[in-house]
Amino acid sequence: MNLDWNKTFQKILKSNKIALATHVHPDGDAYGSLLGMWHLLKNNGSNVTAFVDHTNHNGKYSFLPGYSELIEISQDNHEMYDLAVTLDCGDKGRVTGSEWLFSHSRQVINIDHHYSNPMFGHENIVDDRISSTCELLWKLSVDSKINISKEAATCLFTGIMTDTGNFLYENTSPETYRSTADLVEKGADSETVKFHLYHNKPLANIQFLGFLIQQMQVLLDGKVIILNISREILDNYGVSYEDLDEFVAFARDIKGVEVSALLKEMKDGNIKISLRSKSYFDVSELAQQFNGGGHQRAAGAVSPVDMEKTREQLKNLLEIYFQEKYYDNWNT
Amino acid sequence: MNLDWNKTFQKILKSNKIALATHVHPDGDAYGSLLGMWHLLKNNGSNVTAFVDHTNHNGKYSFLPGYSELIEISQDNHEMYDLAVTLDCGDKGRVTGSEWLFSHSRQVINIDHHYSNPMFGHENIVDDRISSTCELLWKLSVDSKINISKEAATCLFTGIMTDTGNFLYENTSPETYRSTADLVEKGADSETVKFHLYHNKPLANIQFLGFLIQQMQVLLDGKVIILNISREILDNYGVSYEDLDEFVAFARDIKGVEVSALLKEMKDGNIKISLRSKSYFDVSELAQQFNGGGHQRAAGAVSPVDMEKTREQLKNLLEIYFQEKYYDNWNT
Repeated sequence: MNLDWNKTFQKILKSNKIALATHVHPDGDAYGSLLGMWHLLKNNGSNVTAFVDHTNHNGKYSFLPGYSELIEISQDNHEMYDLAVTLDCGDKGRVTGSEWLFSHSRQVINIDHHYSNPMFGHENIVDDRISSTCELLWKLSVDSKINISKEAATCLFTGIMTDTGNFLYENTSPETYRSTADLVEKGADSETVKFHLYHNKPLANIQFLGFLIQQMQVLLDGKVIILNISREILDNYGVSYEDLDEFVAFARDIKGVEVSALLKEMKDGNIKISLRSKSYFDVSELAQQFNGGGHQRAAGAVSPVDMEKTREQLKNLLEIYFQEKYYDNWNT
Repeated sequence: MNLDWNKTFQKILKSNKIALATHVHPDGDAYGSLLGMWHLLKNNGSNVTAFVDHTNHNGKYSFLPGYSELIEISQDNHEMYDLAVTLDCGDKGRVTGSEWLFSHSRQVINIDHHYSNPMFGHENIVDDRISSTCELLWKLSVDSKINISKEAATCLFTGIMTDTGNFLYENTSPETYRSTADLVEKGADSETVKFHLYHNKPLANIQFLGFLIQQMQVLLDGKVIILNISREILDNYGVSYEDLDEFVAFARDIKGVEVSALLKEMKDGNIKISLRSKSYFDVSELAQQFNGGGHQRAAGAVSPVDMEKTREQLKNLLEIYFQEKYYDNWNT
């Protein structure tokens, strides 16, 4: 553990009037680290408020202890905070109500695990080798010997599970498993978390999955799967936007598939492209061809032409990449 | 750790000419513990042979190091072994080639984690509180301070993952996560294991899943899902028998579902019933009505009447159980 980080973490523990925030469109690690930190600080006797933007959220994480205490940022709030702590925010623009928050806090501490984090805080605790912001908070807590309550443990456990895809992503390290062991020992309600994340899937999502499987297009000798979803279909099944990511990942997990693409018609008629790859194809490069971006194994873009044309463009590009850049992989 | 177990484990390490065996229809913990033990003993300089019955197996675990060294038991084999070690076998009858094995070994040591194990060995290392036989072997190795090679670590890691449903089952303890951390640190090839278990699903299985979703029957206010599979359908999709378990579990994971049932027409025309429950329904009791059995959350039976009649009987029984025994759960 970096000694400076420990100092910075001690500074948080000693601060009066702390504001916490995570990124917009919060996922499990966002809610988990926000609420985990909130519990750690409450337990420490701090005066702390946690801000969130629930917009477009389906309440998937409302089971987390403390969820009902989360506050939506309002421009009518004229409080000043000694310290703002941002959690799991890869850049300043992603922070919930960032303008308001930064102008209402005397200092900002940035705790995160994203590779490209530009260190936008006055002090920064950023480690991109760690699975999740929740694992980082666990480490900071253990190193500073503060008490991790049951509630904090449940929140941190949740973020580790979701950001590692239940320990299946490559970011899972021995330390990730160890942190989980420790959190469960400290009373994390792992059964409740597992129930809400894995054993409580909406029937509509499963029926939608059935529909997607029936109409999935297997291309290029089984190396590519394309799924298209019209606005009508999405409305019919009532599947939420944030659940779509699961479906593109599921197609990538089929034997022989290297790239899966999900094309979704948006309200403005543009097509949102989500891309995933399994082991060698750099989909961020492909996304750039549509003015998008992302990571090697997960990327996205928005196409201004219709579904049929987008599909054709994508198909042609994939064919070229496989024939040229990935010719050797193609033939193995 | 039980001191007697340690003594027994030392005895194995000191034996000459050891035969290892696991249960028929081996799963991940069976192959993992069999091959994990084989590597531990090879590394220890022991003279060891691992026996297996691959019958009806689709080679899902053929990626495990040492798989090609596994030997099918043959009646023509007249060797005598000083010691047979059975791994992951809940009773004597489940041991691969048990008659041959028991009559060709001077002593039997039984290493297992099943609740109902009748302690059929001359010595027994059985702990039903542990997730898997692989986790037990890890513990025995660590306590006896023997070296766990990369290959052994990969095999043990595999059994822990499969027997805990990738850490989602209730048998997952803090020690389970810790053993996994340690095995990955010792060089377990976790990425290869994850690839073969989770990122390499046969297209036929996914298409079959799509079919099942389209035809699943949601009954009793969404508390029950029944899936029926005719012989014809199973042949058409080319899905292997051992993959079917996944499908009945997936239906149980839908929101509001308490019981999922999969009815499969067998070659002899009988119907195999697989039952799963989520949180309160004792499906072993239901299975007993069809002269079957099992555990509270997973049970099975064989019905001698046709699909339609079996389905009706099952539906009626479920209705009675929910209205009588589970009336309080039903209404919450």
